Amino acid sequence: MQALMADRGLGAAIIASGLPQPRNFAHNPYPFRASSHFLYLLGAPLQGAVLCIGPEHATLYAEPPDPAQRVWTGPEPSLAELAEELGLEVRSVEQFQAPEQAACLAPVDALSTLWLSELLDRDLEPAHGEPEHAQDQVLADIMVELRLCHDAAAVEQLRQAALVSEAAHRTGMQATERCAFEFEVRAAMEAAVLRQGMTLAYQPIVTVHGEVLHNERHSNPLRPGDLLLADVGAETPEGWAADVTRTWPTSGRFSASQRDVYQVVLAAQQAAIACVRPGVRFLDVHRAALEELTNGLSSLGILRGPLAELLEHGVATAFFPHGVGHLLGLDVHDMEDLGDRAGYPPGRVRSSEPGLRFLRLDRDLEPGMLVTVEPGFYQIEPLLEQARADSRLGRFIDFQMLRRFADVRGIRIGDDVLVTASDPEVLSQRLPKSIEEVEALCAALD
Amino acid sequence: MQALMADRGLGAAIIASGLPQPRNFAHNPYPFRASSHFLYLLGAPLQGAVLCIGPEHATLYAEPPDPAQRVWTGPEPSLAELAEELGLEVRSVEQFQAPEQAACLAPVDALSTLWLSELLDRDLEPAHGEPEHAQDQVLADIMVELRLCHDAAAVEQLRQAALVSEAAHRTGMQATERCAFEFEVRAAMEAAVLRQGMTLAYQPIVTVHGEVLHNERHSNPLRPGDLLLADVGAETPEGWAADVTRTWPTSGRFSASQRDVYQVVLAAQQAAIACVRPGVRFLDVHRAALEELTNGLSSLGILRGPLAELLEHGVATAFFPHGVGHLLGLDVHDMEDLGDRAGYPPGRVRSSEPGLRFLRLDRDLEPGMLVTVEPGFYQIEPLLEQARADSRLGRFIDFQMLRRFADVRGIRIGDDVLVTASDPEVLSQRLPKSIEEVEALCAALD
Repeated sequence: MQALMADRGLGAAIIASGLPQPRNFAHNPYPFRASSHFLYLLGAPLQGAVLCIGPEHATLYAEPPDPAQRVWTGPEPSLAELAEELGLEVRSVEQFQAPEQAACLAPVDALSTLWLSELLDRDLEPAHGEPEHAQDQVLADIMVELRLCHDAAAVEQLRQAALVSEAAHRTGMQATERCAFEFEVRAAMEAAVLRQGMTLAYQPIVTVHGEVLHNERHSNPLRPGDLLLADVGAETPEGWAADVTRTWPTSGRFSASQRDVYQVVLAAQQAAIACVRPGVRFLDVHRAALEELTNGLSSLGILRGPLAELLEHGVATAFFPHGVGHLLGLDVHDMEDLGDRAGYPPGRVRSSEPGLRFLRLDRDLEPGMLVTVEPGFYQIEPLLEQARADSRLGRFIDFQMLRRFADVRGIRIGDDVLVTASDPEVLSQRLPKSIEEVEALCAALD
Repeated sequence: MQALMADRGLGAAIIASGLPQPRNFAHNPYPFRASSHFLYLLGAPLQGAVLCIGPEHATLYAEPPDPAQRVWTGPEPSLAELAEELGLEVRSVEQFQAPEQAACLAPVDALSTLWLSELLDRDLEPAHGEPEHAQDQVLADIMVELRLCHDAAAVEQLRQAALVSEAAHRTGMQATERCAFEFEVRAAMEAAVLRQGMTLAYQPIVTVHGEVLHNERHSNPLRPGDLLLADVGAETPEGWAADVTRTWPTSGRFSASQRDVYQVVLAAQQAAIACVRPGVRFLDVHRAALEELTNGLSSLGILRGPLAELLEHGVATAFFPHGVGHLLGLDVHDMEDLGDRAGYPPGRVRSSEPGLRFLRLDRDLEPGMLVTVEPGFYQIEPLLEQARADSRLGRFIDFQMLRRFADVRGIRIGDDVLVTASDPEVLSQRLPKSIEEVEALCAALD
């Protein structure tokens, strides 16, 4: 960190952990989640702490234990004990004085932002992407450089998160047949994460309406013939995330039409994973998925016309409107608080095209990067209406044929894929995804 | 509401629902929880909505569905559909203009407070108890008057929350013997809540260190001979809460010393519940628990000296430092965002005495009020040290005898008790709490 700071002419950097946020009153907060930058540098989820990194050494400014709180929170380490444990200088946050020209990263929430503004005596806005000040941009770039590729210790954390997420999905598949509502499957999956001492990295998606891409409600009944889409990832106590998606039949058996589309999505995912290696541009991973999806939907008769034209017009994006994946690390969309700075290298910007607008990553891959690969197929009414009304696109879609696939509202298959010097390593590789394996697991007793 | 407003000379009132709060980046929010005041009045957890209540009629200002978000969130009702469903006028929040002199209640979180400040063009601070402006105080008083006693529909919600919380505790008791860590029991209990389509009303306490009163970590191992204290309450989708506490042995059997203290705490709870009836001051419910606890600890030889003196000096508060209970409703500490306005009537203020400082409620009880009754016994090191060093108190505690109870670190037994015209109704009454019943449940297969 300090070498990078020296290299970029940055004298001092401030990274704050943040404050707990109230739910419905001040004493009923949401579970505290420290800033990912702070967790990356310090590894400890302290509340109300500020890490100040100078050219020579770093000082942590932390809240000293409050004797009046002892009854409520139990014994807390003294600042001296904290210094011993963390191996750096620790002072009381009351003694904090911001070094001149110190760079900082704005917290994501308004409360922590107000708090840090006061500590720094500097106006700050909650992080919305691009930092305003030049020195903050330099610091953001340094954090991206540090966090983009994971070291062995980070990979171990990410492996653990993936492992527990696998267990959650297995539990979900095995539990579904005796569940009547989405929230029952969600409960089983979340419990599988909690009972390993982990939490969820994001609000779980467990729904028979997978075509609603960020469906975070769980109140639909499960009906025979439905597909259940589950996008659930664990987070280790140290803050490292997984992001895994599977889709399975509520009755344990895919229908013929569901099998057909599932195979197409799976082939698209496999084609995309096969592209993940150093030097490959992530856009090409996305394109590999889109091409295979286009191919497959053509074979099924849902798309019609020459493949080259289908690709040229991006017809399949009507069924697959999101990006194939994103960076994964301490955040499930890693470093998204810094906008596209992590996902896009200097000089490359997001396309505004329908299929690429939501692509969160377009770097050249490097060993140690962890990406998700999670293509899907969705029947999203307004997108299909749009395509039907579009003289350029509509003729490529056989809406008559599409009706045969009415029981396929949404399918997504997603894994966490580590870029290595040779073949990519799928961290969630032990979790079944072939039709046979998924059906077997759905039928297995838990 | 409008009758009360007219009565108090309030022209208009603004109640905002609030905005979702980000966890580690803007697109990864915590589960949204609308303001309890908003939920009380409207019943629907809309995001970014403002209810404006005038003398004649009320208007809801809500976010119209955003077509660009349709792909992510699915179909949302139009404002006209919302108006139909909710039975009141609904306009776009963009059209909102604050009536002059309108009263409002500040949201609890900083983000929603900034947002509402802008909407109202008025400086607001996140709710920290006493509203600053006179008209806001009048509105706060009206909300307290409305929410203090629950109507039949609210009681039905609270009953449901209590019922599901009972199921969670039963599940926890049955699961404990095969669990090795606190988080495993927590997982089983939380799943029991989630699989009924509810969420948790507050961060669960599930710990073998019950003497840490707000212990929200769950990483301790369960050792034979430990007591597990679980304070877990469900919240209905409409936002109504339960707050239930039980304490049980990790091995399924209480030790002799644990039985002794458990009986004392149970007797204290029963004595307190027996006092819950209209016209009784809640302080006296607290005192009934304290007196019975003092009695019981005397019988065990932990306290010594004449009962009158023990009570006069509040000796037992060294083992029971918190209040016996609080209001319960849409918030687990109901209306605590308004400070002590809900818990204390005009002219009555919190005592600063050690045992009463944390008593959140001291009203005269009325039918329809729901209170928790949750006394406890804890060995909290700094409190015991304090007592030992206090020449006035120390002589009343037999520290030698106390050593025999070393395996009783923390016991709390808590239920939700509805004030009725006659006998109090314990909403969580089907959940076992006698030693025999608890041991039987711990031994039962799940």
